[in-house]
Parts: sequence; C-alpha cells; structure tokens
Amino acid sequence: MARGTLFIIPITIADTELSQVLPSHNTEVIKPIRFFAVEKIKTARQFLRKMDREFPIDDSTFYEQDKHDDYSYQKEVIRHLLDGQDVGLISESGYPAVADPGYLIVAEAQRNGVKVVPLVGPSSLLMALAASGMNGQGFTFNGYLPVKEPDRSKQLQFIIGLVQKTSFSQIFIETPYRNEVIFKDFIKHCPSDMKVCVALDITGPNETIVTQSIADWKKNPFRFDKTPCVFILGV
Amino acid sequence: MARGTLFIIPITIADTELSQVLPSHNTEVIKPIRFFAVEKIKTARQFLRKMDREFPIDDSTFYEQDKHDDYSYQKEVIRHLLDGQDVGLISESGYPAVADPGYLIVAEAQRNGVKVVPLVGPSSLLMALAASGMNGQGFTFNGYLPVKEPDRSKQLQFIIGLVQKTSFSQIFIETPYRNEVIFKDFIKHCPSDMKVCVALDITGPNETIVTQSIADWKKNPFRFDKTPCVFILGV
Repeated sequence: MARGTLFIIPITIADTELSQVLPSHNTEVIKPIRFFAVEKIKTARQFLRKMDREFPIDDSTFYEQDKHDDYSYQKEVIRHLLDGQDVGLISESGYPAVADPGYLIVAEAQRNGVKVVPLVGPSSLLMALAASGMNGQGFTFNGYLPVKEPDRSKQLQFIIGLVQKTSFSQIFIETPYRNEVIFKDFIKHCPSDMKVCVALDITGPNETIVTQSIADWKKNPFRFDKTPCVFILGV
Repeated sequence: MARGTLFIIPITIADTELSQVLPSHNTEVIKPIRFFAVEKIKTARQFLRKMDREFPIDDSTFYEQDKHDDYSYQKEVIRHLLDGQDVGLISESGYPAVADPGYLIVAEAQRNGVKVVPLVGPSSLLMALAASGMNGQGFTFNGYLPVKEPDRSKQLQFIIGLVQKTSFSQIFIETPYRNEVIFKDFIKHCPSDMKVCVALDITGPNETIVTQSIADWKKNPFRFDKTPCVFILGV
C-alpha cells in the first residue's frame, strides 16, 4: 500500500487574516487531511476552523505532542502514515519544526521513509533575519540562552566572540516576559559597535524590526511589552 | 516628509503558480510600488508580469545589484526611500536577503532608519530544514564550502566536529553543477552514523527531501541532476 505524506502546515504568527501570510494553495492541500500531529490541539482546531468554517473537526483526529518528553504519540502518527493516510503537522505558531519540538516527529517520518512536504508560510526567524540587514549568508539560530548564571553570561560571551570572529549573525528567542532581561544582557556584554536587531510582533499590527548598534540602543532604550520577539546579534 | 518603506518581496523558487507559494496579500502590497532593488532585472520583471499582466513595468525603475562589489546603486535606492517612496527588494529566487547579497541594501536602509517590512514567501533553507527532521532548535547556515583544497576539507571537518559537539544542524548550499562533489565530500568525511539531508527542487514537481545516515546513503547513492539543492548535516 502506498504510504501517506507528512505535510508541514504553517499557521499565522499574529492575529491576521490567513490570506496575509498563507498561500491559497495550502487550503486545497489541507482540506482532505483528517489526521494531525499538533503542538496544541486548541490552536490547531482554531486554525482549521478559520481556514474553513465547514472543516470536519469532529471527524478528524489530533495527536498532541506529549509535554513530558514521552514521544509515544509518535508511534500512532507513524502508523497512520505507513497505513497510507496523510498527516498534517501544526505547531503553536508560525512554521512547524523550526524553533519547536515538531522536528522530532518529522525525524521519525524520515526514518520510516515517509515523504515529507513542507508548505509555505511565515517564520518569524527568517523574516526577522531578512529585515534586520544582518549577514544573511552565514547565520546561526541559538534558541534560548541558559536561564541561570553563570551559564547564561558565559554562553552569551562565547556567542559574542563568534560574531566577532566569523561575522555570522546570531539569532535568539526569549520567552516574552523575559525580553527586557535578554536585551539588558546584550547591552551589558556586547561591545558598543556590535549591532542588535529587535524584531517584534512579526506580521502583526505593531510589527517593528529595528537594527542599531549597542551605542545607539543605549541612547534610545527600547520599551518591550509582552510580545513575542526575535533578537539578532551581528556586525 | 514621511520616509518610504523597504518591502522584502519573495518570489517563486521553482516554476510554479504564484498562488502555490505566495499569499494573495503580497500582490496588494506590491501593486503600488514603482521602485525595485533587484538581483537580476529580468527575473524581477518576469515575476511582476506573472503577478499582474497589467503591471506598469515601463513606468517602474529597477536598480540591479552591482556584480563588482561596488554598491553605489545603494545610494540611489536609499535616496528614494528617504524621499518617501516605497522600494521592493527582489532576489533571483525565493526569499531575498537570506543566502544572497540582498541583505546589504537592507543594512543600509536600517542604518538610515528606514522601515523594513518582510512579506511571506518560500525559503528553500527553511523548508528543507523543517522537512529534514533534523534539529530545528539549533542550526547554522554556512552558505558555500570553500571550493579549493585543503581549505574545503578542513572547513568541512571543522563543521562535522560542530555537529558532533553541539548537535546543531549544519546547512549548506552548492552551485547545482557541483551537487555531486559536495555529496561525495560528505560521504568521504562524515562518520557513518551522521545524517545527511538532501533537499532538491523545493516546491517544484520533482521535490525530494530525504534524510538518511551516511551508511544508508552509501547503499543507495543519489543521482543528482542540475537542480538547486540544499544539504544539511545533523544527528
């Protein structure tokens, strides 16, 4: 029997119309799918309903990523794929499997020789990098810095050294309530000519993507609210 | 006078309908723009005509990135932005300013305090990474390996060491006629349990995104044609 396909299904980042950030083609691909591997069931259902008010949510099956690092749910998802059913992967926001644990189910699909097809959609990392004006020909996504000292300062200083040595852009995310903290860490540890890009509310009504030197940021400090934010260090 | 906005305008990667890979919203944003900073004028014109057969190409101005590293064209683009005119940035394929020199004009816009707005569209790097099943929570884009030995082997061995030490995914591109060469380099230098993702013709009719260990690739060698390809090393 032919195997199913694992479709990577991006969703909105901010509270926008789907037509602002998703190609119309995605709807045609998603409509026949009845099995979903998701980060949060509630978010996935909301997206499907927004995409198509008639979407048969009650006839669909949702497998939620287990929060306790027990990925037994993967077995059921892979079973559907090997049985010939298509599965959609949906994360909590934006592009699945990048900056979220969704890549683990994709890895399992690849191990089983299942076809994986990525659809087009918004990625705050990619859009922040492109709009930052920082080096787009060499860059690293570091995820989160360690929360505790001295690991946090040590790791940040190591990465600042990489920027100086390689000129690769260094991308970070932070939980929104800690945006102020990471920004102050940059101010504290980076040399004054190093550049920091702050990218917040990507695709949303308050979208702001500003790149300045540490010296300039010191003159005009930034007021964060609790919006999801991408930070980039570079030259 | 209010400044213009620099819009980052992604285009298709493969020969597909625009509705497959671009949100319909992009067309509304692009239609009023009459100034474009582009990697190749021909590609940009073709895209605009495909988007809107009535697009006033002859009333639009195109600034082509200078191939000789003399970025004097940037001055004219920035002048338009400071004069209050919007400018669109278009690369030769896919997402501008990521894996192409377009980021230099974005940097100049940021230095001049110009607003930069990224639209949504396809990025072969991002889509390859998501579909590879490799670590999406830490990754580096390395661009091209050095062409000449011994630099090439030395750099590749350094990056293989990073994969083993950090488990960050390592992304590469190569000019299509050298796809075989870089793949053989991976086979030669990587330990047999390291994974290689080969992602070719992303969004196109022959899209193939396969992740296997070096040991498995040795059993089933890959036949490349001259298609643009993204390569990822990981665990």
